[in-house]
Amino acid sequence: MTVSMDVCRAFATWSALCEPGDEAAGILVQSLGPVEALRVVSEWEPGSRVPNGFDSRGERRPWMLSFERWKLRLMDLDLDYHLRTLDNVRGILVVPGDPRWPEVLNDLGNARPHALWVRGDPHALVRCVQGRSVSLVGARAATRYGADVAGELAYELNQQGVWVVSGGAYGIDAAAHRGAMSSVGLSVAIMAGGVDSFYPATNTGLLEQLTNKGAVIAEVPCGWRPAKQRFLLRNRLIAALTQATVVVEAGARSGAVSTVNHARGLGRHVAAVPGPVTSSASVGCHQLLREGAVCVTSAAEIIELVSPIGVAGAPIPSGAQSLFSNRSPECSRVLDAMPKNGWTTPEKIARIAGVTVAEARSNLGILELEGLIESKSGKYTWKHLGM
Amino acid sequence: MTVSMDVCRAFATWSALCEPGDEAAGILVQSLGPVEALRVVSEWEPGSRVPNGFDSRGERRPWMLSFERWKLRLMDLDLDYHLRTLDNVRGILVVPGDPRWPEVLNDLGNARPHALWVRGDPHALVRCVQGRSVSLVGARAATRYGADVAGELAYELNQQGVWVVSGGAYGIDAAAHRGAMSSVGLSVAIMAGGVDSFYPATNTGLLEQLTNKGAVIAEVPCGWRPAKQRFLLRNRLIAALTQATVVVEAGARSGAVSTVNHARGLGRHVAAVPGPVTSSASVGCHQLLREGAVCVTSAAEIIELVSPIGVAGAPIPSGAQSLFSNRSPECSRVLDAMPKNGWTTPEKIARIAGVTVAEARSNLGILELEGLIESKSGKYTWKHLGM
Repeated sequence: MTVSMDVCRAFATWSALCEPGDEAAGILVQSLGPVEALRVVSEWEPGSRVPNGFDSRGERRPWMLSFERWKLRLMDLDLDYHLRTLDNVRGILVVPGDPRWPEVLNDLGNARPHALWVRGDPHALVRCVQGRSVSLVGARAATRYGADVAGELAYELNQQGVWVVSGGAYGIDAAAHRGAMSSVGLSVAIMAGGVDSFYPATNTGLLEQLTNKGAVIAEVPCGWRPAKQRFLLRNRLIAALTQATVVVEAGARSGAVSTVNHARGLGRHVAAVPGPVTSSASVGCHQLLREGAVCVTSAAEIIELVSPIGVAGAPIPSGAQSLFSNRSPECSRVLDAMPKNGWTTPEKIARIAGVTVAEARSNLGILELEGLIESKSGKYTWKHLGM
Repeated sequence: MTVSMDVCRAFATWSALCEPGDEAAGILVQSLGPVEALRVVSEWEPGSRVPNGFDSRGERRPWMLSFERWKLRLMDLDLDYHLRTLDNVRGILVVPGDPRWPEVLNDLGNARPHALWVRGDPHALVRCVQGRSVSLVGARAATRYGADVAGELAYELNQQGVWVVSGGAYGIDAAAHRGAMSSVGLSVAIMAGGVDSFYPATNTGLLEQLTNKGAVIAEVPCGWRPAKQRFLLRNRLIAALTQATVVVEAGARSGAVSTVNHARGLGRHVAAVPGPVTSSASVGCHQLLREGAVCVTSAAEIIELVSPIGVAGAPIPSGAQSLFSNRSPECSRVLDAMPKNGWTTPEKIARIAGVTVAEARSNLGILELEGLIESKSGKYTWKHLGM
């Protein structure tokens, strides 16, 4: 299955006519197809009726306004400029219908992006969504603790073949990508602005590394600025592309909360990494845990979350099983009742341990078999090893 | 309502005849009353039938064995010695029926203790269970982080009039009591051995402080050792006496898990304080969070847990509400579309922001009212403050 040049250019045009998440555009494009939808807008005269009865389809904001916005941008649009800019950075366009299009984005319904502007391995996205993938998100103002944990989780996830998805910001985003790069490089960054110019600029080196094995993608054309609203809407792609969103470190105001809200809306798993309660950088994570996010402390626990039940159960931390020994309460009490030194009798042990003499005798026998105590002529003492 | 000397001595005797949590003793004492139950045991001859058909009452372990154990101890018992020892440390005995008996202990059913051997304020327990009370438990091998958090939580809980209950061990137990002592001293320690001799000895000074305003209690007689099984069964009293059990720091093998199991069985709240995932001292807490314990990070969140709904809601960390401003998406986009310098027109803003010209105009008006931008002859620029 391939996509014709016409359709590809029409999708690209749509990604330039509207802001991310414009559901009116989604309805029009998904009803008429991108080419016909574009024709309708270009032939539409401001002030005239919206065609095909779309004005009666359940969108809150009047269709007329939407047509006016798209039209305004269409008149100005130089699509070839944006495509040349993409080509200059050796990027490609992936649109719905392309075998490289990640089908999970269709979960976004009318808010589905019209196109992905991709740098890096064009097959990365498909491998990412067909395998197991996790978004690691969090504060730009990460602490050393948060950055270390994000890096280690990403490294371990990659070692187990799990893809990591994040933004391209300072802090947790960058630490996650760095962790993946130090492993096998299964990492995808989703940008809020065009992929021709990396933001923030200090992450340029890291993001270029991603284009070797992973990918850097955006739903907005090359040349577009990473405006604030675009960050928040970009987060829905991070949530949609992964089976679980894991917040590593987040203050009370972190944008990671918006990714979590998208993940919840899409029925994806939401998890948070705890941190010290004395750290303001973990306040958002703890709030999420209070609201029912899954507590995760290791890559194994994250993998458990994105694997079929029974396939990758995380081990329960060692020791948790052996909290209570296999000894019966009576046997433990008999053991506790042994004097520090010297020999004792089952009768004395029985009174101290609160067991019958017969129970004392049988449990002393068990402890003798365990090699803890020894007996002579019906009396018992600790077995001294090495004597 | 007072308790006769006979009944009081009988309960005290029962607390010496059996180990904590002996449900067979509980059934006998609660069916016949402590005095009659004691008469039955003292008149019982080893090998003879258990009276009153108790051998048919649903206890797994044969009644005959139980009678033999109790009888064995009864023959040896010098109750007055234990009571003198209590008196020597100015302790008192509180038994069921005494107005100072904490009725919540009856939730333990047949595992209810027969008596409490109490040092400190005899009314502390009643005030503790009639008000709000929280157990703060955790590892003996606490880190500085865990001890600091336990101390601060206890201090804040006390400041809000909430009682703190814990064991008497090193680590979290001691830190919690110290925090309460540095506040108003609403603190109760439950010991696994007799209250005549504090264990561990290094906490003696702290536990003596508790006897000034709070209390130190045990269900076992003065003179008894804090044997291992008694620690685990002591934990059911900590759980029963409080509305919530909060684990502050716990390794994978911590005994705090046994307190949590008791709390769950009694329908009490269970909460855990998160910590760094890199700290083995928090592994047990994170495991509890994964199993559904409530995540708590402050005294306010603990108080919310033990208060009626709507009475003491913990504040959501500041900023969480203001993640998204009150501006509409269109208004935010208009604001983002403003050029860094110079004057612009609503038409230019409309194309950049992806809004209609009318929307650009009205939102520029809103931003002008907010004092962010200014206009002259239909053009707009940033308002420079202080110019």
